[in-house]
Amino acid sequence: MTRTINEEASSEKAEARRTMSGLEYMRKMMAGELTPSGMAHLMDFRLVEVAEGRAVFSIKPEERHYNGIGIVHGGLAATLLDSAMGCAVNTMMPAGKIFTTLEMKINYIRPMRRETGEVLCEASVIHVGGHTATAEGRIVDREGRLYAHGTATCMLFS
Amino acid sequence: MTRTINEEASSEKAEARRTMSGLEYMRKMMAGELTPSGMAHLMDFRLVEVAEGRAVFSIKPEERHYNGIGIVHGGLAATLLDSAMGCAVNTMMPAGKIFTTLEMKINYIRPMRRETGEVLCEASVIHVGGHTATAEGRIVDREGRLYAHGTATCMLFS
Amino acid sequence: MTRTINEEASSEKAEARRTMSGLEYMRKMMAGELTPSGMAHLMDFRLVEVAEGRAVFSIKPEERHYNGIGIVHGGLAATLLDSAMGCAVNTMMPAGKIFTTLEMKINYIRPMRRETGEVLCEASVIHVGGHTATAEGRIVDREGRLYAHGTATCMLFS
Amino acid sequence: MTRTINEEASSEKAEARRTMSGLEYMRKMMAGELTPSGMAHLMDFRLVEVAEGRAVFSIKPEERHYNGIGIVHGGLAATLLDSAMGCAVNTMMPAGKIFTTLEMKINYIRPMRRETGEVLCEASVIHVGGHTATAEGRIVDREGRLYAHGTATCMLFS
Repeated sequence: MTRTINEEASSEKAEARRTMSGLEYMRKMMAGELTPSGMAHLMDFRLVEVAEGRAVFSIKPEERHYNGIGIVHGGLAATLLDSAMGCAVNTMMPAGKIFTTLEMKINYIRPMRRETGEVLCEASVIHVGGHTATAEGRIVDREGRLYAHGTATCMLFS
Repeated sequence: MTRTINEEASSEKAEARRTMSGLEYMRKMMAGELTPSGMAHLMDFRLVEVAEGRAVFSIKPEERHYNGIGIVHGGLAATLLDSAMGCAVNTMMPAGKIFTTLEMKINYIRPMRRETGEVLCEASVIHVGGHTATAEGRIVDREGRLYAHGTATCMLFS
Repeated sequence: MTRTINEEASSEKAEARRTMSGLEYMRKMMAGELTPSGMAHLMDFRLVEVAEGRAVFSIKPEERHYNGIGIVHGGLAATLLDSAMGCAVNTMMPAGKIFTTLEMKINYIRPMRRETGEVLCEASVIHVGGHTATAEGRIVDREGRLYAHGTATCMLFS
Repeated sequence: MTRTINEEASSEKAEARRTMSGLEYMRKMMAGELTPSGMAHLMDFRLVEVAEGRAVFSIKPEERHYNGIGIVHGGLAATLLDSAMGCAVNTMMPAGKIFTTLEMKINYIRPMRRETGEVLCEASVIHVGGHTATAEGRIVDREGRLYAHGTATCMLFS
């Protein structure tokens, strides 16, 4: 069976992650040295800031993100928050340690529309222990207006 | 300012929703009589069943839904659950009554991959009162294996 | 340092749990063969049903459970749901396997009052895997009216 | 039917709340000018700080708060967080505006024990709009160690 380009990219990235910390990996992603994920490409969001315990993604909501009633689908906020909170936790993982997100909870504060313009999804770690981690995130526009916020619970593995 | 085709569609749908119940509206959507939303088109999921208090969406996970580590992004499950739980609540709304999702919580049970094949996201209403409604949903494959589950809280408006 | 009666009881129960499954342990608790926990005594709730993957607690709300505005404090529903969902997960644990609750989420549907009379908190397991488990629970009165519902995520240990 | 002392107290407090803002009411509670709620008395926690958008409760965990396995029952953290997040929202309500908590979500980080000593439950408002409010809270000990954190969603009424 031939491998697709995406499979090659996934395998290359998994290998990369084994030999570097989560933070090094995230910095390579931000520098554009790793192929963006399918979902980041599909939704058109990108990592714009990464630091120990913190990650920020950016997106410009468009009509292709809309639900049936003319506002951005709740799935977009969920996708951004899942990405940002996961990346924030990842920045705390040393080489060889990985995590999986067990659950996520999102509050929707106000609707996003095309007119909203670029929004940032900022996430930071609340707690990192030996077996679990929790993080929180917020989606805000350039004026600091809040659109959604959430928390996530992750389990850590060696 | 000229209006885009999507704006025309949104306006047409908002008008449609004012004069029919949520269930009638959902049935029209399933029959293909309403333009699918931007997000449904982008993610390629579709409504496959609707009844009073219940809605089911279907999707076939592909590499374009993947996150950076070679499995389906958590945002896909969130998007499906948000759609299905919202539609389940919508089926209980009489003409002129609408709702907004205040919050959603999702548990991730096992990863989805391209090899998973078609999954169904089944949602049903837990409670519908005068001012609020809650719903629950599950994502399962054709063998009934559970991939994610969640709940949502909605606020109702006249 | 002398040990209190409660410490003796805790130690006795920890020993008991090591040598029997969660279900056997829960059945002993229901039969009154184990000292009730401090919180069960303080709140005055009791286990009334236990089976594989399921647990039911009962309580009669009183004024001592009230918050400052004349209805039962949200903490009572939370305490019952935490107990019932934890016990439901416990019934699936073989001897030597234990769990800890990572998070819990509760929806409040209608207020409980003294006049509500006895309510049951019924919980059942949604998923039990090798490392995690999830459960759901509902609080209902004798007429089946819903007062609160919730879900919990647990991590399992050997 | 004769009214109990608690009913008198509830009625007196409901009247008090109609004519003053949530913040004024909370300050009276902290000053000891209002009868503490049944649950605050039962659990033995007290309000130690209140300001616009913020409330802090204090408790000293004891064996009477324990669950069956020798640590503090998860219901105590839930009760404290529900109280503190609700009070934080209440401080933002003008006279005549009230709220109800629709849902709450709690993450358990580490167990509390008698040896933990006094813990503080600090809550602050995330968002207050016309119809809804959200808040977050954390339970920490005197050294700042985190025991639990949570968020809540409230609906507002006139």
